[in-house]
Amino acid sequence: MNPATFAPQHFLWSFADGVATVTLNRPEKKNPLTFESYAELRDTFRTLVFAKDVKAVVLTGAEGNFSSGGDVREIIGPLTEMDMPALLDFTRMTGDLVKAIRACPQPVITAVDGICVGAGAILAMASDLRLATPQAKCAFLFNKVGLAGCDMGACAILPRIIGQGRASELLFTGRTMSAEEGERWGFWNRLVEPDALAGEAADWAARLAAGPTFANGVTKTQLNAEWDMGIDQAIEAEAQAQAICMQTEDFKRAYRAFIAKEKPVFEGN
Amino acid sequence: MNPATFAPQHFLWSFADGVATVTLNRPEKKNPLTFESYAELRDTFRTLVFAKDVKAVVLTGAEGNFSSGGDVREIIGPLTEMDMPALLDFTRMTGDLVKAIRACPQPVITAVDGICVGAGAILAMASDLRLATPQAKCAFLFNKVGLAGCDMGACAILPRIIGQGRASELLFTGRTMSAEEGERWGFWNRLVEPDALAGEAADWAARLAAGPTFANGVTKTQLNAEWDMGIDQAIEAEAQAQAICMQTEDFKRAYRAFIAKEKPVFEGN
Amino acid sequence: MNPATFAPQHFLWSFADGVATVTLNRPEKKNPLTFESYAELRDTFRTLVFAKDVKAVVLTGAEGNFSSGGDVREIIGPLTEMDMPALLDFTRMTGDLVKAIRACPQPVITAVDGICVGAGAILAMASDLRLATPQAKCAFLFNKVGLAGCDMGACAILPRIIGQGRASELLFTGRTMSAEEGERWGFWNRLVEPDALAGEAADWAARLAAGPTFANGVTKTQLNAEWDMGIDQAIEAEAQAQAICMQTEDFKRAYRAFIAKEKPVFEGN
Repeated sequence: MNPATFAPQHFLWSFADGVATVTLNRPEKKNPLTFESYAELRDTFRTLVFAKDVKAVVLTGAEGNFSSGGDVREIIGPLTEMDMPALLDFTRMTGDLVKAIRACPQPVITAVDGICVGAGAILAMASDLRLATPQAKCAFLFNKVGLAGCDMGACAILPRIIGQGRASELLFTGRTMSAEEGERWGFWNRLVEPDALAGEAADWAARLAAGPTFANGVTKTQLNAEWDMGIDQAIEAEAQAQAICMQTEDFKRAYRAFIAKEKPVFEGN
Repeated sequence: MNPATFAPQHFLWSFADGVATVTLNRPEKKNPLTFESYAELRDTFRTLVFAKDVKAVVLTGAEGNFSSGGDVREIIGPLTEMDMPALLDFTRMTGDLVKAIRACPQPVITAVDGICVGAGAILAMASDLRLATPQAKCAFLFNKVGLAGCDMGACAILPRIIGQGRASELLFTGRTMSAEEGERWGFWNRLVEPDALAGEAADWAARLAAGPTFANGVTKTQLNAEWDMGIDQAIEAEAQAQAICMQTEDFKRAYRAFIAKEKPVFEGN
Repeated sequence: MNPATFAPQHFLWSFADGVATVTLNRPEKKNPLTFESYAELRDTFRTLVFAKDVKAVVLTGAEGNFSSGGDVREIIGPLTEMDMPALLDFTRMTGDLVKAIRACPQPVITAVDGICVGAGAILAMASDLRLATPQAKCAFLFNKVGLAGCDMGACAILPRIIGQGRASELLFTGRTMSAEEGERWGFWNRLVEPDALAGEAADWAARLAAGPTFANGVTKTQLNAEWDMGIDQAIEAEAQAQAICMQTEDFKRAYRAFIAKEKPVFEGN
């Protein structure tokens, strides 16, 4: 992937200064996902593993909403007609998108205004950092469409973000989590007004892109890998991972800058 | 089990419109548990796996208290005289009650007023959803009676609900968690005044019973099963579980209702 | 170890009434850690497993700060020159300190005023209970020195204390967590004013030391051991662990005291 020339078909893409921005862009329907956009998002996040120029990713939606999730007529309708192998192809494709968001080394910052429901809520949940406006309405509404709350990893991931009791309520009822609740419960890292949202996300991404990006990727790898390790195993895994980072130039750059009373300039190696 | 005629000996049981209500009912002693009530609760929750007519469960206590936990004279006294095999029979019986609450497919909503301590606190913790009044006093007080905080799964489950630091404090000290703390920490899903508690719990249960109950059972299965899975394994497990739910009639009912601009009527299949 | 006569070289040690107090004491540099103090702390916490007279531990810092973490000139400088085996020796030594804090049976209460950053933040995180002043500034600032957030178990432990989203923010950015945030997020168990901090920590430790200390050690063992167990496995583990505690004299002491309407006097056996 050349991030400067990449031109996806089903969402907007921009790239500058190490930051890629993915914008879900079908605003007349509040940016739903389709079979095609799921697949293209999955492939894009998979490709990011090799896109060394991309240091951080912002994921957002166009025109006042993040995403209305799987399109009812374009996705749910066809699913009600499918046989089991086809259904499993679909649920694995959507799960693979979450796996790809978790597996790429770049921190993913989701910036949410307005509607953020179903698969939209999942994309926010799967991200590393989450910004929202006070108008953000987030619902894991699978229950409302006759399905289980266990979609794309929600029963594993959501409880680790907001706690098992609150996650159970959202997943069993499908109710909307208000922005205020989401901030209080640790889902949203910060609430900002709509006209400041894009700028705030860009600031966060720029700061991450200016950091020790190889080390950031190791942080992400370990946050994933230690999910179900014992404490002692996790500590040993971190001893190895951090020793790797101690052989980077960025570690030396930080030390030299400290001694020189300067601000370090990291290069991601 | 026929929920309409079930008549337990050691607690109250009522059943209507798919909702079973279990009421601990020895109010003169604040509804303690005894050897017999533990065993009957365990057997009842185990039987719920096969009680297809029961769609949701409310667990509550009579007359202003939830439960004072294991009765001091009837349980703790005899335990101090037992040999190890008998002690292990007891701790496994109490643990089996928690396993049975987690294993039944119905969401269990605990509604708590007043005292909720020891095994009472554990029953609330083991439930899926928790309502309480501002007067609820919840204490994992095992430490106060000379025991460890690790009772009936508390060292595993409580940290996932309120966080490892807060759980450590409650389990090492046995102190009371106030209702306000419990709400703020994610233990109680909502606080309601005492005279509204039973109605609120009934409302929550009715809404769950009117939902896609087969899918709700799958949600519960996955919340349990993914407890100690890796992220990728959990996502694959959810792909399979949700594909199963996509072959239910409830999924089609929801789709047809959406297209017809109606509210779906779920049947749990 | 004889706690009454133990005289470490690299930190202060005091012992009275079953409570050991470890004070990081290089206040002119805000109590940094060095190669030597890491090793001596590791050895001390390892030895506590056998120090039956020590019932609780307070960990704190001298003169208005907790710890500035690994000393830049004494630790970071040499690390930038080391080969991989030497680096791994270092990261394993620091990780072994966390393992030792988790493995000793005594509850460890960290009392923090002022600066608590880098390895200092990790020591607080690795403790069982955490007190701080409103002036406490806690930062997992590894990212700022060109390293990954995965240091000494942070990617495993911090998310379980404050949630995955908030932990991700702190670990990816290295930013300071304010005392107010830390309390709200469940990192600090309580905030107290600076002049009350030592007294509050001593009170907590004294109460723990007066409790059923054998059982407290079992609580700690299980909090660690159940970290990555399934729910049913954890419940069985607790059935066994609690049955062991039911054969202690402290359990009988509590029962006899209850019957006599007295306060139990525990002896830790």
